[in-house]
This record gives sequence, C-alpha cells and structure tokens, in this order.
Amino acid sequence: MLEVNGIENGIVIDHMHAGNGLKVFNKLFADTENPVVLLMNVKSGVLGQKDIIKIENTFEVNLDLLGLIDPNITVNVIQNGKLVDKKKVEIPKVIKGGIACSNPRCITHTDDYAIPEFKLVGVNGRLKYECSYCEEITTYKL
Amino acid sequence: MLEVNGIENGIVIDHMHAGNGLKVFNKLFADTENPVVLLMNVKSGVLGQKDIIKIENTFEVNLDLLGLIDPNITVNVIQNGKLVDKKKVEIPKVIKGGIACSNPRCITHTDDYAIPEFKLVGVNGRLKYECSYCEEITTYKL
Repeated sequence: MLEVNGIENGIVIDHMHAGNGLKVFNKLFADTENPVVLLMNVKSGVLGQKDIIKIENTFEVNLDLLGLIDPNITVNVIQNGKLVDKKKVEIPKVIKGGIACSNPRCITHTDDYAIPEFKLVGVNGRLKYECSYCEEITTYKL
Repeated sequence: MLEVNGIENGIVIDHMHAGNGLKVFNKLFADTENPVVLLMNVKSGVLGQKDIIKIENTFEVNLDLLGLIDPNITVNVIQNGKLVDKKKVEIPKVIKGGIACSNPRCITHTDDYAIPEFKLVGVNGRLKYECSYCEEITTYKL
C-alpha cells in the first residue's frame, strides 16, 4: 500500500475528492522548492477515494483558493511532528485573484495592477462570482 | 521526513530532476484512477533534489515521452513487492504524438487522424524534431 510517513514541520491538506489534489497542486505548489508529496486516489473510509498533499516547511496556504477548489478540505498544521492546528475551509464569499474574469474585455486581463475581487452572488450547482471591475458574473464549477 | 513506503504491484519512476515530476505527472497520470504518489524535491545523493512517482497497478508507461521530459529517468517495475525489471529511458530518436508540431498550419492540428511522427534531427541544448507531415522542425527544451 502507498503510505507516506508524517512530516515534522509543515501542512497536510486532507479530504480532497479524488482529482482535486492535482488541481490544488498545480495551482498552489507547482513552483515550490520544499519537499512535497501528492497522493492521489488513496482509499478513504468517508470519500471512497481521496487525495492528500503534504508539504514541508510551509505554513501559509490560500484557504480561499482551497475552498474554491474543494470545500471539504481540512488543513492540518504540524510543528515538531505534532498537530498544532486544524483548519476547515469553506466556499469563499469574497476572493481576490485566483480566478479569471469570464468577460474577455474586462480590464483585469490587460492591466497587471487590476486584481479582480470576486463576490459570491449565487450557489446553485455552480458558484457565481461577480467581478469588482466589470460586474460580469463568472461561474465556477464545484 | 517525507517517505513513501514501497508498492506491491506497479512502477516507480525515479531520478527525475526536481520539477520534471510534475510535468510527467500532468502528461501521463492526470486521469489515472489508480493510487499514485508524486514526491517532489526530495533529497537525493546524486541529483541534490529529485522527484519520484510511484503508481500502483500500472505497468505500461510511454518510455519515449519519459525520455523526452528527462533522459535521466529510471523505471522500476515491481511485482508482489519485488523489483522484477529496471528500465532506462533515452532521448527518443522517433516519437509518435506526445508533442505538437510548431507549424500552426500543419495538418496535424486540425485532422484528428493525423498523428505526427517526429524524427530527431539535432541535439544541441535543445532537441530538434522534424514533423513527418510538414517537415517543420519543432524544438524541445531538455
């Protein structure tokens, strides 16, 4: 069986639905220089199969982005081999950056300084976010 | 320390330069339903840092694509917990598919049945492959 031993210092991102681990990895950790492990499709009592990421020497993570990708995620913070904090994520009500406005003429696509803030305006199978610049609605599939 | 225990049946893709593991993972294993682990930036005596992929219940892997991404790769085949085969990869002299022709007007971009075969015509910092359809040279950075 594929198993990964614990980490001494870092975070464990757990309870991702199978497939979401790679999305999180590509979005948040593709450029890290710290040791990191992605486990995909491992057995889980609750989810059937799940993904897990363990990253060493990293304690900051964008919880809004995690909540956008998979609101079931839990984040365990490990220090000196001990669990010191456990965070739940949730669907972000407001998210700055992280997604692209679906309006191709929105200024945020051409102006590097215009980081759009998206406000959650609907949850109905898909999340609906309104752009702070152009007010276009961008949908995001859960 | 991050460590992953051995697998019973499957393959271990080892000795990837740090960063290449994610490329291999996205190209070859993004859609797998088998348990799989990507380790990135783990300590290595020879390479300093390296990436490793272990995938269960999978024995076939495109060695040409691996050789294209990182010719240092070794592939270990594990059956019933024992190493039964060890494969080295190399820069492919001919590769079918896997890369896209750099000529935007090449028929391979619009005809689903035209899978280009690329012939290695030069190795000089970058690999140079000639498309079997349009003879355009596509370069690929090692």
